[in-house]
Amino acid sequence: MQNKQKDILSGLQQAVEKKDNRMVMSLLDGMHPADIADILEKLEIDQIVYILRLLPDEVEADVITELDEDLQEEILDKLSPEEISEIVEELQTDEAADLLSELPPEQKQEVITSIDDIEHAKDIVDLLRYDEDTAGGLMGKELVQVNENWNILRAVGEMRKQAENMPQVHTIYVVDDDNKLKGRLSLKRLLTTSTKAAIKDVYNPNIHYVHVSDHARDVANLMQKYNLFVVPVVDDFGHLVGQITLDDVMDYVQEEAEKDFQMVAGLADEVEPDDTIKNMMKARLPWLIVALLGGFLSVVVLNGFSEALTKYATLFFFTPLIAATAGNVGVQSSAIVVQALAKGSFQGSILKRLLKEIVLSFFNGLVLAILLLLIGKLFLGHILQGFDLMMAVTVAISLIVVIINASLVGTFVPLILDKYGIDPAVATGPFITTSNDIIGLFLFFSIAKIILGF
Amino acid sequence: MQNKQKDILSGLQQAVEKKDNRMVMSLLDGMHPADIADILEKLEIDQIVYILRLLPDEVEADVITELDEDLQEEILDKLSPEEISEIVEELQTDEAADLLSELPPEQKQEVITSIDDIEHAKDIVDLLRYDEDTAGGLMGKELVQVNENWNILRAVGEMRKQAENMPQVHTIYVVDDDNKLKGRLSLKRLLTTSTKAAIKDVYNPNIHYVHVSDHARDVANLMQKYNLFVVPVVDDFGHLVGQITLDDVMDYVQEEAEKDFQMVAGLADEVEPDDTIKNMMKARLPWLIVALLGGFLSVVVLNGFSEALTKYATLFFFTPLIAATAGNVGVQSSAIVVQALAKGSFQGSILKRLLKEIVLSFFNGLVLAILLLLIGKLFLGHILQGFDLMMAVTVAISLIVVIINASLVGTFVPLILDKYGIDPAVATGPFITTSNDIIGLFLFFSIAKIILGF
Repeated sequence: MQNKQKDILSGLQQAVEKKDNRMVMSLLDGMHPADIADILEKLEIDQIVYILRLLPDEVEADVITELDEDLQEEILDKLSPEEISEIVEELQTDEAADLLSELPPEQKQEVITSIDDIEHAKDIVDLLRYDEDTAGGLMGKELVQVNENWNILRAVGEMRKQAENMPQVHTIYVVDDDNKLKGRLSLKRLLTTSTKAAIKDVYNPNIHYVHVSDHARDVANLMQKYNLFVVPVVDDFGHLVGQITLDDVMDYVQEEAEKDFQMVAGLADEVEPDDTIKNMMKARLPWLIVALLGGFLSVVVLNGFSEALTKYATLFFFTPLIAATAGNVGVQSSAIVVQALAKGSFQGSILKRLLKEIVLSFFNGLVLAILLLLIGKLFLGHILQGFDLMMAVTVAISLIVVIINASLVGTFVPLILDKYGIDPAVATGPFITTSNDIIGLFLFFSIAKIILGF
Repeated sequence: MQNKQKDILSGLQQAVEKKDNRMVMSLLDGMHPADIADILEKLEIDQIVYILRLLPDEVEADVITELDEDLQEEILDKLSPEEISEIVEELQTDEAADLLSELPPEQKQEVITSIDDIEHAKDIVDLLRYDEDTAGGLMGKELVQVNENWNILRAVGEMRKQAENMPQVHTIYVVDDDNKLKGRLSLKRLLTTSTKAAIKDVYNPNIHYVHVSDHARDVANLMQKYNLFVVPVVDDFGHLVGQITLDDVMDYVQEEAEKDFQMVAGLADEVEPDDTIKNMMKARLPWLIVALLGGFLSVVVLNGFSEALTKYATLFFFTPLIAATAGNVGVQSSAIVVQALAKGSFQGSILKRLLKEIVLSFFNGLVLAILLLLIGKLFLGHILQGFDLMMAVTVAISLIVVIINASLVGTFVPLILDKYGIDPAVATGPFITTSNDIIGLFLFFSIAKIILGF
């Protein structure tokens, strides 16, 4: 498979160079658009555009939607508004809206006015109004709907017309004369009922639906909870305005999961191993700089306790241990909160949650403190100068305090961010580690100052 | 909604206490099994079992599959093999197999022999053979298939029978006399072709399929790439043995994403904010202990350079900065590798990848080193005793070396783990941070020793 792909790739490069259009077409003949996209992604932008222009509009459209977003933008940049509108005509409304949303406003307008099919253009304009993180942003306008006042015979006829341009029909929606969603009609029912029966007598009024402005996250949770492959979308008046399919939701869920994973790993941007060095730096450097600035603060904190150097220099050997523990605990706490927020399973008061963290952290801290005293007695005492019982107790008590503090910060910060509409996952990565490092070290040396007195 | 749930919950508690079975039933009447499950999860185990026994078998079965796995196990523990087999009879084969896999071997055997429907029992036994991370572990045996030698009329009749126990029909598969997968039949084609036409003349032979032993991750990537809602599964001989639906794959993808997220956050187990303190400790303490042990190693490393204390004590103020940078870079590198491995997009040789990391890290390090020199000159120089140009250069050079090293470790370790069949995400959390802390500090002081000479 890999080898076949390579053969096609080099064949394509040669064919494009020789402008052998027949060769290009025969190499790509019968391939799935997603596979064509995979191969095109390895070519230069001009080669890609050359090949895309050779493909039938329908295939070209499908291939473009499968490409990486950055690449899509580059390609759109090279195409005329007329060419883009021909592609858009071939796309489902939700894909068309996604593609158009990447264009600058003026060009977007130009493309839309070039679309021949007025209804299609209207649907796309409607979709462009919604935020991409809402049900409206996920939905497509294509669906199959029948009026409750029709009979089965008429419904089947209308359905066939509606289904013509749809890749797959999942559900038949039932609406009233005012286009308000009433329920759904099962295929089984449709096949087993007299053709004269009125839809209103046979449809199923139990139907899960979402509102256009519902958050995409809630749509995903609903579909997952009730195992829905498709969910209808209604507006403020209960009108049926679109439907969301599980594949779109899955893409959304996966993208969000990837973003969260990158955030906790301190990556500012989506990156893949084969990205350019420049893109890699853009993703990785910002958080490293944040952490470095935090590092300077910890230098200042430690410098503030430099009197300890003369009598209790060994304390400074424990700074990585204290800082790492504080950082780890903070990330753990924030990750639990962020994941619960994403799943919509965060319940109960913040205060109760913080109290629980304190109890939990106390026990975790106690275990680590005992471990520290044991290892200190058995091992560290022999090799560390000046590591006596008092210093061991100092480190042990600090560990408990630092862990409690870090877990409170790790719990509190993402909740506050979420409350103010900022993605709480920001607080899972280097940000929470670094702040906990600094606070942790400050607490450690303050406790040491009180106990040991320097 | 929340309030209504609370009312039902307290109503249920009272009804169960008074053994008012009618009240229980009327409270839960018409509710979706997933909603019933949500409410039951807030009750005591004995109350849950009491209520489940009152529900009709079909509802009981659906509710149980919606419950948390730990709770499922507790419930199965309280039910007799006969009761469990009655539940299993109501479930789809894949759900039945998932449920049974939680039972101890003997009890599992007892339940299976109590199942009345022999075919259902056989299908479940077949599914229990497969690892849960494979296509076989994800698939269900329920599907609609027609023989290529039938005509449309016969096919429709057989399909109706087959579809009776299925919640939703996504695709009609076409097989030959030997049950080998040949293709699929579109509903549209079925509705628009003469009833006398032979299936073999109208079916579509282009069909994506997976092998029973394919990894679940690859199934997910395939379905996502080609936007499939369902994919058939074949065995070594090309026989059609099951199908996988997108909702099952989505659950798998989400679980994996959650696991990766937890791993990078240093959580050893799936945890939610409302878990018990004991479960929380079980999830959080292991990695904290690993990090603490690493912390001891860093104490030993620093102690090994204690001669520096007399002349270059200020160096020790930089240990959190160096350790944090090393840790962050390591996590970034490993997270990129882990994500690429999960998406199946990791390509090219390891050596090339490592070389790229070196170049990238050199530039990242350079930026941070320059920043450090600037801030050192403008700010730190004034407040830190003994922070002269030589020390600033020492820290700056160390930063570059430490960053390069951490990125190599972060890239290499997950690749090695993956090669030996260990989940590479293990290498994204505290493990990689801690090891990079220790190595980073060792490199820092070694470089300092060479440059400053102590």
